[in-house]
Amino acid sequence: MRFYSVTEPVKYEGPDSTNPLAFRYYDPKRKLLGKSMAEHLRFAVCYWHTLCWPGLDPFGGETFLRPWHQAGDQMDHARRKADMMFETLRLLNVPFFTFHDLDIAPEGSSLKEFNRNVSTIASHLLKKMDETGVKLLWGTANMFSNRRFMAGAATNPDPDVFAYCAAQVKHCLDVTKELGGENYVMWGGREGYETLLNTDLKRELAQAGRFLNLVVDYKHKIGFKGPILIEPKPQEPTKHQYDYDVATVYSFLKANGLEKEVKVNIEQNHAILAGHTFEHEIALASALGIFGSIDLNRGDYQSGWDTDQFAMNVPELALALYEILKAGGLTTGGMNFDAKIRRQSIDPDDLLHAHVGSMDACARALIAAAKMIEDGRLKAEVDKRYAKWDEPKNQAMLHGKESLADIAGRVLSENIDPKPRSGRQEYLENLLNTYV
Amino acid sequence: MRFYSVTEPVKYEGPDSTNPLAFRYYDPKRKLLGKSMAEHLRFAVCYWHTLCWPGLDPFGGETFLRPWHQAGDQMDHARRKADMMFETLRLLNVPFFTFHDLDIAPEGSSLKEFNRNVSTIASHLLKKMDETGVKLLWGTANMFSNRRFMAGAATNPDPDVFAYCAAQVKHCLDVTKELGGENYVMWGGREGYETLLNTDLKRELAQAGRFLNLVVDYKHKIGFKGPILIEPKPQEPTKHQYDYDVATVYSFLKANGLEKEVKVNIEQNHAILAGHTFEHEIALASALGIFGSIDLNRGDYQSGWDTDQFAMNVPELALALYEILKAGGLTTGGMNFDAKIRRQSIDPDDLLHAHVGSMDACARALIAAAKMIEDGRLKAEVDKRYAKWDEPKNQAMLHGKESLADIAGRVLSENIDPKPRSGRQEYLENLLNTYV
Amino acid sequence: MRFYSVTEPVKYEGPDSTNPLAFRYYDPKRKLLGKSMAEHLRFAVCYWHTLCWPGLDPFGGETFLRPWHQAGDQMDHARRKADMMFETLRLLNVPFFTFHDLDIAPEGSSLKEFNRNVSTIASHLLKKMDETGVKLLWGTANMFSNRRFMAGAATNPDPDVFAYCAAQVKHCLDVTKELGGENYVMWGGREGYETLLNTDLKRELAQAGRFLNLVVDYKHKIGFKGPILIEPKPQEPTKHQYDYDVATVYSFLKANGLEKEVKVNIEQNHAILAGHTFEHEIALASALGIFGSIDLNRGDYQSGWDTDQFAMNVPELALALYEILKAGGLTTGGMNFDAKIRRQSIDPDDLLHAHVGSMDACARALIAAAKMIEDGRLKAEVDKRYAKWDEPKNQAMLHGKESLADIAGRVLSENIDPKPRSGRQEYLENLLNTYV
Amino acid sequence: MRFYSVTEPVKYEGPDSTNPLAFRYYDPKRKLLGKSMAEHLRFAVCYWHTLCWPGLDPFGGETFLRPWHQAGDQMDHARRKADMMFETLRLLNVPFFTFHDLDIAPEGSSLKEFNRNVSTIASHLLKKMDETGVKLLWGTANMFSNRRFMAGAATNPDPDVFAYCAAQVKHCLDVTKELGGENYVMWGGREGYETLLNTDLKRELAQAGRFLNLVVDYKHKIGFKGPILIEPKPQEPTKHQYDYDVATVYSFLKANGLEKEVKVNIEQNHAILAGHTFEHEIALASALGIFGSIDLNRGDYQSGWDTDQFAMNVPELALALYEILKAGGLTTGGMNFDAKIRRQSIDPDDLLHAHVGSMDACARALIAAAKMIEDGRLKAEVDKRYAKWDEPKNQAMLHGKESLADIAGRVLSENIDPKPRSGRQEYLENLLNTYV
Ligand SMILES: [Co+2]
Ligand SMILES: [Co+2]
Ligand SMILES: [Co+2]
Ligand SMILES: [Co+2]
Ligand SMILES: [Co+2]
Ligand SMILES: [Co+2]
Ligand SMILES: [Co+2]
Ligand SMILES: [Co+2]
Repeated sequence: MRFYSVTEPVKYEGPDSTNPLAFRYYDPKRKLLGKSMAEHLRFAVCYWHTLCWPGLDPFGGETFLRPWHQAGDQMDHARRKADMMFETLRLLNVPFFTFHDLDIAPEGSSLKEFNRNVSTIASHLLKKMDETGVKLLWGTANMFSNRRFMAGAATNPDPDVFAYCAAQVKHCLDVTKELGGENYVMWGGREGYETLLNTDLKRELAQAGRFLNLVVDYKHKIGFKGPILIEPKPQEPTKHQYDYDVATVYSFLKANGLEKEVKVNIEQNHAILAGHTFEHEIALASALGIFGSIDLNRGDYQSGWDTDQFAMNVPELALALYEILKAGGLTTGGMNFDAKIRRQSIDPDDLLHAHVGSMDACARALIAAAKMIEDGRLKAEVDKRYAKWDEPKNQAMLHGKESLADIAGRVLSENIDPKPRSGRQEYLENLLNTYV
Repeated sequence: MRFYSVTEPVKYEGPDSTNPLAFRYYDPKRKLLGKSMAEHLRFAVCYWHTLCWPGLDPFGGETFLRPWHQAGDQMDHARRKADMMFETLRLLNVPFFTFHDLDIAPEGSSLKEFNRNVSTIASHLLKKMDETGVKLLWGTANMFSNRRFMAGAATNPDPDVFAYCAAQVKHCLDVTKELGGENYVMWGGREGYETLLNTDLKRELAQAGRFLNLVVDYKHKIGFKGPILIEPKPQEPTKHQYDYDVATVYSFLKANGLEKEVKVNIEQNHAILAGHTFEHEIALASALGIFGSIDLNRGDYQSGWDTDQFAMNVPELALALYEILKAGGLTTGGMNFDAKIRRQSIDPDDLLHAHVGSMDACARALIAAAKMIEDGRLKAEVDKRYAKWDEPKNQAMLHGKESLADIAGRVLSENIDPKPRSGRQEYLENLLNTYV
Repeated sequence: MRFYSVTEPVKYEGPDSTNPLAFRYYDPKRKLLGKSMAEHLRFAVCYWHTLCWPGLDPFGGETFLRPWHQAGDQMDHARRKADMMFETLRLLNVPFFTFHDLDIAPEGSSLKEFNRNVSTIASHLLKKMDETGVKLLWGTANMFSNRRFMAGAATNPDPDVFAYCAAQVKHCLDVTKELGGENYVMWGGREGYETLLNTDLKRELAQAGRFLNLVVDYKHKIGFKGPILIEPKPQEPTKHQYDYDVATVYSFLKANGLEKEVKVNIEQNHAILAGHTFEHEIALASALGIFGSIDLNRGDYQSGWDTDQFAMNVPELALALYEILKAGGLTTGGMNFDAKIRRQSIDPDDLLHAHVGSMDACARALIAAAKMIEDGRLKAEVDKRYAKWDEPKNQAMLHGKESLADIAGRVLSENIDPKPRSGRQEYLENLLNTYV
Repeated sequence: MRFYSVTEPVKYEGPDSTNPLAFRYYDPKRKLLGKSMAEHLRFAVCYWHTLCWPGLDPFGGETFLRPWHQAGDQMDHARRKADMMFETLRLLNVPFFTFHDLDIAPEGSSLKEFNRNVSTIASHLLKKMDETGVKLLWGTANMFSNRRFMAGAATNPDPDVFAYCAAQVKHCLDVTKELGGENYVMWGGREGYETLLNTDLKRELAQAGRFLNLVVDYKHKIGFKGPILIEPKPQEPTKHQYDYDVATVYSFLKANGLEKEVKVNIEQNHAILAGHTFEHEIALASALGIFGSIDLNRGDYQSGWDTDQFAMNVPELALALYEILKAGGLTTGGMNFDAKIRRQSIDPDDLLHAHVGSMDACARALIAAAKMIEDGRLKAEVDKRYAKWDEPKNQAMLHGKESLADIAGRVLSENIDPKPRSGRQEYLENLLNTYV
């Protein structure tokens, strides 16, 4: 019995296609700014939302009833799920996938057994990867679902949990390396607190700092080349998460001397939950030198939780892709669909529609962003606005050649009286609309 | 013609007083944890909301019609306002005040004239301070109201604005020192952006870093002893402000090597606009070693802007004061009422009611927080929760004596399988309610 | 093996008690405004959060591991749960409970079997109720957990679901009547939509209107005396819920001619998710004549979802209770703890601490609210503010005795030029703080 | 001296134009679904944001320095502003304008003088309208800026304010009729409250009901043909506004028997502040039969206040226009740019850029929405989803031919067991993206 209704990979058919399972914009080999679309976008399908999530929500049970959610041997189910991942990648022509250890293999009754399960399935994955050419964008350890992590992972008040997490991450990083993963991600879902009344925030930050240092050291020890990525999120499941947003992660990295070692995996929905735009978080990470990868999805602006919907709004995506291109593009990073179909989308094909639509929206946004870069008018406006800073005397001031008193003396003696200039926001927004 | 209806200072009359202009809890000399209430709370009245704000809002004009808002000589008005500040402090028995340069003196037609006006009024203030014993908690420069600052102060695309700001801050810091100010505050109201389309975020962050370094250097040069304080705020007036929250300010300080030089002035309303609790921001600043001072007010949880209302909820204030006491209390900092009466509160006496009520709420919260400290049960619960971390082997792990692989080996060989323990949040919330 | 660590009911011990399982304020027989505290507050324990919820959240599995969540005969578990409800009520001295049909009995494999299970357990409950004197505040049908309801209950695009719901509500209302339930509640958790792209809003509103009419008719037919209650909630699980808030429910009732038949069950957390205060929703429902009952809990102001925490902030609760008392108090309604302990609170006793603490907070708030009513100063201030409206000419204007032109003529001829008066908000907030 | 840099009207030049002051999509005479674009969109320029707002924000003074904001004769300025409105309309080729009475004429020192000023300028406007063919979409009375309205207009605790408002609305409605206004709008900016502590919500709702009845009666009396429109907004300037959202307005209309007389003017920014989407509010108003007109703008999803920016996101606008077309299109209503350029956009031409860009975005969205209608696939999906409801037996059930017990009997006897079908949200979102 087939899972998806189709067996032929989705193909590029151009903007006029009315085939719902065709790409209208995503043409993987099309070159933009010297790279193919596939190289620019580096799409990845995630295990958890696409294959593991059963359609639960806080008020209702599963709706999807996937074959591997039925009773039966869990390792068989794990292999079946793995095969379905590769079938999904094949149908979508997506080159990467991502996983949590717990997504790919059953938990078993001990860490030893879990590790064994993970390794067993990893071998299965590796074989499929070799056959298909698919690659692993990143792996990550799930340290939030089991009740042992209810009070945090590395930041748990119980040092045994910290130790347990160290063991789990070690194995997951080993496996990620074995699979040629290009990055390794940490999402601190329960690295936070519910109430300060039972929390020693300072201790927990110190624990988190140590943990990250341990992971970075280990990465170097085993020669894992890719970056460690932290994924900021302000809250949910905890009331407050320590990796609130890009700036908070940077403050944490700086406090622990890790700002050269660790980068961020930025998710749109987490950005807006933290009160930012997606493009803000990308631009800030780029300015701070810690931009790593993207968890692509969209939040609902009227819902205060992580809806993880498939991103579809082209003008918004174009702003994000423009920042990504300005940041030098994705290097080891990718665009991981950390997105889930709605709970009512119970047909397996809904998974295909979701990915196809969002890939197409990204492709369209990329085309627009590349035009912005090539055209250069947006950048020229910005450069013009700051041009006076490029004058030698102002560069001198910026680089500390004058003291506050020096500058003040100059202002008074030269009677400097700045005249405001229009910020031209509306003109620039119109200009933007000519690209999208 | 009198401004306030009363001439006698507000007095402590005890909890049973029904006199609306009496303190029921604020008994300045009462000792708690070895310090007087006055020493703990270090209240300050602010110039801008209390005396300068005319009752405008985005949809309506002034409602207050203060005498000094009428036509007339602006320097006369400035002196009249200053006298009213001291009368307010006398009636409220408040030991500190705070100001922006533009609050105390008229702008004039040039920076030179403005500086002269500021200095003239500063002399007037100094005389009154000597007479009354009132002190200056902090001064700050208003670099957001005039249209020259519409695109930012230090982060302006125009270096002339940067220079102008340097000159303005120099004078304001000089005056603050002259008046014996115990801190100097910077609120970057327009240090942010409206749209990334016209903004070079990286440049602007570099400008902000240079500016802060200039100010710190100058402070040392003139021997200003108090800390420089940055006041985090996520947005408003700008769409995005660079000093988003405590963590963001810390990331900025670390990036510029200023984390030992600069502290934060935390405002409740800004904390909640950034998605945090007030106590979170205090606890985090304390953990990071940058806790400085408080702008006391309350935001409206249903309004998405800075309402700056007078804080009145005792249980909430008790949580904040508990964190302040745990952080070692206010040293050079204070509790500055950055709070405004509602636009409909058009009677001058409404200013007195507002301050008296909020001072009393703080006093009551302080009494509760001191009990929490003395009683020690809250702390004991927390300590117990983390106690295992104090064991030597766990301290060793925390301090980097084991590698990730070492720990993993130990977990597997010892079969470490952590057992969760109740977080007891409800019990602790009940316990809290026994203090407030 | 005992579930709770205690066997003796929680007792009133007065404000100075340090016994964490004693009431410090809730003294059920204490009279206030002519009624006992128990009569005023009419507390209820809910089945779902207290006994059914296993500690899941969107990112993690169960943490509570209650005996009845283990494998075993589901009807045995249901009886065991029922017994634990009565034990909880006994220990807490709470007079009411509430349930969804699905909370009390297993779903079985058909509606017939489910109905049978519900009836069987209902008999068991009835026996316990007779033995203990405990009463049922309300029953309700769970029409949101099973996947058949994923697209709504009465508002489902499939009329078979509508019919199924009719059958389910009929049985649940029958059972509620049989158990002497004092109200019957409908929470339209999935009566809403995820996207307008697949939704016919007008059809769905018509379906909802018909459904409610059917229920009201049936209630009369069987002689159920209590009101039908709708529980407003703006969203979650759906993106948009039709019962958004009190005003929206009223608009729906008016549109269907049911505003005399149906009242609202107001939940604090839902009120704040809709952008209101709790007291606003109560005051509005009272003004509109549809105030029914309370789901007592608290939302987290920083979290955008339904946290359903136990209410603990006395000043906030006092505002709500003041509105309830002004509305004439709870008649058939009650204060149902629609509140859940945190997922980390895994000790059964945490359930007791939570209820005891929140009951005490309510009691304290009630004492304060009763003082406000007796003292009358708050009301007097309000009355004074509107006093001019009580003058005959203004009553005439209010009651339509003058046309717009008449009034305009009078304004111009009498040169009416209104002078604003202070709204005295700060004074009133201080006054409030003298009661709490 | 010219205000704008251009003198030639903005023209349609097609999608490939790079002229920033040309329309690329808005081709007024282009026919879609049988009507011209101009007839569909019925654009209006508003007086307040475009000509009156000086660039103030809560933290800064004016930035625009328009000629009519300088000292000088206020009536001269009013005429100058009026002329600039017509020049703006001419350059933009916009057929309608909108105003508050206070926008067009100075307040003077009494209502009599104000009325006279309004009438004088109205005559000037009428002359210009005759000359140009421009029409008035709607007028409205500003009953929120002057301090006399600080506690509300019709809902003021002082009946003199109610009377004053009656007089003001009478005159404004007279003038609107005289100018051939096609609607009359009421925005209840201060019809709400700051705190329940000083508010009698029930009285205020009764006052609002009476006021609206007076206005409706007067409208009929003078033969004003257009609808009265209420503009929902949840808050700001007040903490809570009585016209919260469309559902709340409907509840108010029903309570006062005015649902056939009054419609709504829906603003995007107000919709999102109330927790809805723009398209939700339109769809709901249409379903309830009260859809009237549009205040077109956009809110910032990260800012919790009314930013009133120019709408630029085509996919979002397409959803709104699709709902408008489904609702039968704008009849007497229009698309009023209740939008303001940013405070930093200090060049007059920024006003042109803003309108041109947003008109073009609307035109593009209209083209997309018309395609959706013509194509019919979106509608077909929805119809299919509800198709079973069209069967006779289900229509009977919907129309009350069966009782709850009847239906329940049928469910049990027929063993109705509904099977869920996919909601296909992702497929539909993709489909949407083929139109935009
Ligand atoms: Co993610
Ligand atoms: Co997410
Ligand atoms: Co402040
Ligand atoms: Co503030
Ligand atoms: Co509830
Ligand atoms: Co709830
Ligand atoms: Co509007
Ligand atoms: Co608006």
